[in-house]
Amino acid sequence: MLYFASDYQETAHPAILNRFLETAGEHMTAYGSDKYCESAQEKLRSACDAPRAEVRFLAGGTQTNQIVVDLLLRPWQGVIAAVTGHVNGHEAGAIEYTGHKVLTVPQHAGKVRADEVRALIETWRGDAAREHIVEPGMLYISHPTEYGTLYTRAELEALSVLCRTYGIPLYVDGARLGSGLAGRGTDVTLPVLAANADAFYIGGTKCGALFGEALVFPNGNLPERFLSRIKQHGALLAKGWSVGLQFDVLFSDGLYESLGAHADAMAERLRAGMLEKGYETYIDSPTNQQFFAVDDALLQKLDGEVVYSFWEKLADGRTVIRLATSWATTPEDVDALLAFL
Amino acid sequence: MLYFASDYQETAHPAILNRFLETAGEHMTAYGSDKYCESAQEKLRSACDAPRAEVRFLAGGTQTNQIVVDLLLRPWQGVIAAVTGHVNGHEAGAIEYTGHKVLTVPQHAGKVRADEVRALIETWRGDAAREHIVEPGMLYISHPTEYGTLYTRAELEALSVLCRTYGIPLYVDGARLGSGLAGRGTDVTLPVLAANADAFYIGGTKCGALFGEALVFPNGNLPERFLSRIKQHGALLAKGWSVGLQFDVLFSDGLYESLGAHADAMAERLRAGMLEKGYETYIDSPTNQQFFAVDDALLQKLDGEVVYSFWEKLADGRTVIRLATSWATTPEDVDALLAFL
Amino acid sequence: MLYFASDYQETAHPAILNRFLETAGEHMTAYGSDKYCESAQEKLRSACDAPRAEVRFLAGGTQTNQIVVDLLLRPWQGVIAAVTGHVNGHEAGAIEYTGHKVLTVPQHAGKVRADEVRALIETWRGDAAREHIVEPGMLYISHPTEYGTLYTRAELEALSVLCRTYGIPLYVDGARLGSGLAGRGTDVTLPVLAANADAFYIGGTKCGALFGEALVFPNGNLPERFLSRIKQHGALLAKGWSVGLQFDVLFSDGLYESLGAHADAMAERLRAGMLEKGYETYIDSPTNQQFFAVDDALLQKLDGEVVYSFWEKLADGRTVIRLATSWATTPEDVDALLAFL
Amino acid sequence: MLYFASDYQETAHPAILNRFLETAGEHMTAYGSDKYCESAQEKLRSACDAPRAEVRFLAGGTQTNQIVVDLLLRPWQGVIAAVTGHVNGHEAGAIEYTGHKVLTVPQHAGKVRADEVRALIETWRGDAAREHIVEPGMLYISHPTEYGTLYTRAELEALSVLCRTYGIPLYVDGARLGSGLAGRGTDVTLPVLAANADAFYIGGTKCGALFGEALVFPNGNLPERFLSRIKQHGALLAKGWSVGLQFDVLFSDGLYESLGAHADAMAERLRAGMLEKGYETYIDSPTNQQFFAVDDALLQKLDGEVVYSFWEKLADGRTVIRLATSWATTPEDVDALLAFL
Repeated sequence: MLYFASDYQETAHPAILNRFLETAGEHMTAYGSDKYCESAQEKLRSACDAPRAEVRFLAGGTQTNQIVVDLLLRPWQGVIAAVTGHVNGHEAGAIEYTGHKVLTVPQHAGKVRADEVRALIETWRGDAAREHIVEPGMLYISHPTEYGTLYTRAELEALSVLCRTYGIPLYVDGARLGSGLAGRGTDVTLPVLAANADAFYIGGTKCGALFGEALVFPNGNLPERFLSRIKQHGALLAKGWSVGLQFDVLFSDGLYESLGAHADAMAERLRAGMLEKGYETYIDSPTNQQFFAVDDALLQKLDGEVVYSFWEKLADGRTVIRLATSWATTPEDVDALLAFL
Repeated sequence: MLYFASDYQETAHPAILNRFLETAGEHMTAYGSDKYCESAQEKLRSACDAPRAEVRFLAGGTQTNQIVVDLLLRPWQGVIAAVTGHVNGHEAGAIEYTGHKVLTVPQHAGKVRADEVRALIETWRGDAAREHIVEPGMLYISHPTEYGTLYTRAELEALSVLCRTYGIPLYVDGARLGSGLAGRGTDVTLPVLAANADAFYIGGTKCGALFGEALVFPNGNLPERFLSRIKQHGALLAKGWSVGLQFDVLFSDGLYESLGAHADAMAERLRAGMLEKGYETYIDSPTNQQFFAVDDALLQKLDGEVVYSFWEKLADGRTVIRLATSWATTPEDVDALLAFL
Repeated sequence: MLYFASDYQETAHPAILNRFLETAGEHMTAYGSDKYCESAQEKLRSACDAPRAEVRFLAGGTQTNQIVVDLLLRPWQGVIAAVTGHVNGHEAGAIEYTGHKVLTVPQHAGKVRADEVRALIETWRGDAAREHIVEPGMLYISHPTEYGTLYTRAELEALSVLCRTYGIPLYVDGARLGSGLAGRGTDVTLPVLAANADAFYIGGTKCGALFGEALVFPNGNLPERFLSRIKQHGALLAKGWSVGLQFDVLFSDGLYESLGAHADAMAERLRAGMLEKGYETYIDSPTNQQFFAVDDALLQKLDGEVVYSFWEKLADGRTVIRLATSWATTPEDVDALLAFL
Repeated sequence: MLYFASDYQETAHPAILNRFLETAGEHMTAYGSDKYCESAQEKLRSACDAPRAEVRFLAGGTQTNQIVVDLLLRPWQGVIAAVTGHVNGHEAGAIEYTGHKVLTVPQHAGKVRADEVRALIETWRGDAAREHIVEPGMLYISHPTEYGTLYTRAELEALSVLCRTYGIPLYVDGARLGSGLAGRGTDVTLPVLAANADAFYIGGTKCGALFGEALVFPNGNLPERFLSRIKQHGALLAKGWSVGLQFDVLFSDGLYESLGAHADAMAERLRAGMLEKGYETYIDSPTNQQFFAVDDALLQKLDGEVVYSFWEKLADGRTVIRLATSWATTPEDVDALLAFL
């Protein structure tokens, strides 16, 4: 079987697992107050070129999105997101569970456009009945998006300026940020993210960690009573050090960067091979998720041989499938897939 | 420095960490559908002598309590707990966050009494205005309790009969169940728990795991749409196998049992030594948490030398402190503490 | 000043206010258990030809929508509505406040189409990742819609069949049902509603009452613990009789019918006059809300002389305004407006 | 039948009902922006000697309590209340429904004591684990209390000073404030309440209105986005004027005062007569709710002849019953009851 279904179906990078073994006999303090978290926080501040940044560690992506949205919004506000945004479609209602509405704007290859976000906000502002309408209170984007695409630095800056103009926070979901930072042609770096976002998370689960995400408030703008509130959400880890240690390893010796770069290199190898064989990409993704529009014959061929993700059915009868690479994908894995096809 | 503050301030057992290393190159399926979870589930069903049990894995204790209470209660119901119950006092309002009230009964060395639970339910039933009063919808207990004490099998059975009489579920928080199962003089085993509780969790975080808890529905009574609902709570782990693997290791070769027994043996060594030195236990705890009523002179002596937990101030001016042992505590650690005192 | 802004800006019908005066010296029981509620319930069951119907009285429309959606959905489900549905756009997030998502389908003159509702449900059912997606759990429509339009009996029946096929309830928001039942050309009666909907409310506030709505569960399908749950929502009225009495009056001697018919007759008079004068309707509404697409010159003329509602700005620069009639609008009011124009 | 069960089981005062009739032909603006609300607000500011007060009108008491608690607390805080407080025991969990915990202090004849409130706050402040414990964020009291008792001005001032010291708001539930202001021996007036509370409501439902309560923020401290938030709670009345008008009438010509005084005079007449006949009060209530500890023989005698409220069963076998008078109780009603006994 060839495995291209997702980037969270492999173990953690051995550097992390080995580091865990070395903790034998140590005594850590609880709830993220330990030396591993401290060290990782310092490394992340440095990597983000954001010396005032507050960094916290959580267990998973939907949990992080839910908490950030709930904590950055006032009770009467909603979060703006693309219709295809993870918070809108694939979190089982975790945002609404906290009492907040997701306000959607159109998606363009998974991305939102500043003019359409502005229009949504202006429509609300200009509506005489706006007290009866949920106020747009923050902007959620993901980078890479659900379609593997990336914002350019200019696009991010435009969204950031827009958000600051309207006084609403910009939050970036970086579940696959490792792949995003290494994406083909990108000019978005961690410092660029930190300069433009009010909060973002650096994905661990899908980028080499066993589990865990690093949530960054680049301007020191940690929401009030953060620890109590994540406890209230059931998200406070007693052994917070277990995530801190992983990010400490990931941000040592450029590991996070190199894992992302590797995943993307494998994706490029896959993409080039597929294009060469005449397959058609559904969308031009510069990161580790590659989308192809394929016919039923191929689906039958893949069946039982290749693990992939179904994405959607097209009007022309073809199917969009996703093939995802990861830090653990080898050139041999890719070549085996290409050979099989 | 001597470390007796808690049982979640050390790393995971090396058998677990080594097992993680062995997963290199494997492909796991997501969200707990993998072979490690399956194997652990099978081992837990066997250990509980509950072949129909449904077992699920979550990241932490408060998260597990919050989810079980929210999923077992109907929207208009509340959960009965001791005033000292973790869900009442130490979860930052995580239960109320889900919309449910905690209905308290008195505590007796941390335990609830069946007659007082019955009285609370009967009072509600007998009140002509009960439609205006939160309905008692389940019973929460912990085993061991917040004071390290244990229910006897007879007590558990009485609570179970009571709950079944009234048609409300009995839920047991087993954050420290490893220590509980090995507690001095206990006749409560996993099969006893499984026979009497409608849901309980087997603590990992405080019993040798890196993180994670195993939630057991012994009668196959998994709440409807469990996966969607824990996702909605932000609690679904993409790499669910990472907890499954840990419980698979913990429930191989009697590891979980032996870790609990070791922690308790260290606690007994500590207790015996302290009593011998003339210190006074505040409560007779048969498990890994030991409580002593001490004077200010001792507190000053401990300061900067021994890490312990403050518990409460007594009316007579003394202070109750908690000294906790764990699977990682060594006889030398205990002896060093006793020597220091 | 000429008043056409809305249908909830006048007092209650004198028959109701006089009936209140006649209650002097009476003793009513609390929380809707009184003789007025009982009498109104009987009359509504009869008017709906639904002898098993359960009827309850609430204070307002958004409150009623919020409660029905929360009580009919399971915690993990969302409500399907037109993008223009009141629950989606104009209730300040009251649905999301209860933890539920609004799942939108396109609107066609304010109405939903059965095929599009079916497609949304089928898409959810067919999605391999549906456990991560909010389940469509009920269908919300309003009759009349936000644009004053009406479903035909056939359309209602198709939606009802669809909902029953999928086992989800159909709920009809009847804030302006009085006008709807009398609408030009309609074949939807109260018994038709009762036969097709699983719940609906008969609007009082906008149809001659001082305040209050009558919520009908035509098949006796009152949600469990209804009284406790509306109390939990803050919606239980101590003097529940005050709404019951109003519906008792409204459903005596055909008053509700005649008030709706009068409002619609005034709307037809207004519409005919406007068309004659060359104004253009934006939508063909057969009920008491009339929408016209007008230019800026007219808006200036209206300013300070006619109270109306702004609806939306069109791409061609014109503005859609709403002129609403009510049970209290007189032919002279309409003629004065037409004369002014 | 003799009616002493409650004070919300009669109609509204005729002055109110007549005033409703006089509104025929008027045009009111929506959502509480009308002239009646404005006039009532002005009268209430004047009666409270609080020129900066913001006043809003809601439909019922539990709704008002729920909204005030939710809006004055931050998401992670809880409300302090007496164990017998209405928000703790008799609102079907409406506070917890909004995600907040009720933190209880002992009751003394229904009242809280400043030292016990202080102790609760100080205990939280002094707890090293306070981040895991719900923060006391406001104080709820009722005046009169659930037992009809009244705070003295000095007691209110002490609570107010305490709350201001700790920076938490003091909220007074005045469901029966009419009776409270006229209570035997009280030195608490509306200006005293306004000077000491951060929010309070003046009860209408139980004091002569058809329905409705007036919520006062005496220092102009209206919570942000009040209208949107009460809409989100389902509590915004389209015809807000219907409550405004009632308070406009109640606060004209001293009507509210005189209705409260009348209810209390009837209660005193009842109490005096009962004491004379040898009955024993359970608590010394200076307001319209009178509590008597009676034996089974009396209960049998009352059965089917007198409508009263069961309160609680005493250890000595006797029963506490409540006899409530209202603005509508006549001396003849009282005398008939006394004669019957």
